[in-house]
Amino acid sequence: MIVLGIDPGIARTGWGIIEVSGSKVKAIDYGCFETSSKEELSIRLEKLYLEISKLIKIHKPQVLGIEELFFNTNAKTALIVGHARGVVLLCAAKAGLEIKGFTPLEVKIALTGYGRAEKAQMGKMVKAVLNLKELPKPDDTTDALAVALSCAF
Amino acid sequence: MIVLGIDPGIARTGWGIIEVSGSKVKAIDYGCFETSSKEELSIRLEKLYLEISKLIKIHKPQVLGIEELFFNTNAKTALIVGHARGVVLLCAAKAGLEIKGFTPLEVKIALTGYGRAEKAQMGKMVKAVLNLKELPKPDDTTDALAVALSCAF
Repeated sequence: MIVLGIDPGIARTGWGIIEVSGSKVKAIDYGCFETSSKEELSIRLEKLYLEISKLIKIHKPQVLGIEELFFNTNAKTALIVGHARGVVLLCAAKAGLEIKGFTPLEVKIALTGYGRAEKAQMGKMVKAVLNLKELPKPDDTTDALAVALSCAF
Repeated sequence: MIVLGIDPGIARTGWGIIEVSGSKVKAIDYGCFETSSKEELSIRLEKLYLEISKLIKIHKPQVLGIEELFFNTNAKTALIVGHARGVVLLCAAKAGLEIKGFTPLEVKIALTGYGRAEKAQMGKMVKAVLNLKELPKPDDTTDALAVALSCAF
């Protein structure tokens, strides 16, 4: 099973593709799309749409793992993240992917068994489980791989 | 100039197409897309994407008028509206439309010259300016026509 994990955002969208076979997990590819605040919101969303669609076309994942709605933020931030998340969900629906949502708490518990794990601890776990040489950068990429792994666990 | 006005939402997205020639405005078509809460968010977004894309293909608007971010709501509502708004902006970007955003206050002032106009007053203005026989229903449709008219004024 191929899983695409996404940590959506307008400025940066982290992504990670992993392969799950039985109890084995393997990182296929990962990274982070960035768009400039100098560009119009609609153009940034279109770029995100094209990048995510391309990823799905290349890697043919069956499952999208995505961070669930978080409400501990202000309405302005939520609205903007919502724009990016909506476009990601649209890409998944168009390609017929199964969608699994995880709250940040669920991702932490899935990876470390501990709901209050810190960023650094999460990064170490992602690096260890996927046997990566380096910690993926930026954090958005790590978060995307973490949510992909949550689908596997 | 053909203007598409949109009042985005997950459950209901109001839309209105108007033609603007000089100081004349004419309603071409208007309505409201609805999706069921029984369906998954991603499927609802895909339906919205398909409906808006179809509208743009049929009526070939040059401008999208859309309500700007509003912050007098909670983060959960903002996030959900953000999903729908993101998909609408994506449709506009893909079709190369010029995008004009208006806050609810700007729409009220454009239509009535008064920032605290009530729903009923806005409805009457939309009906009068566009010479409609009936008040458009639901409110989302009226709001979409009001934001389209804001682009004209």
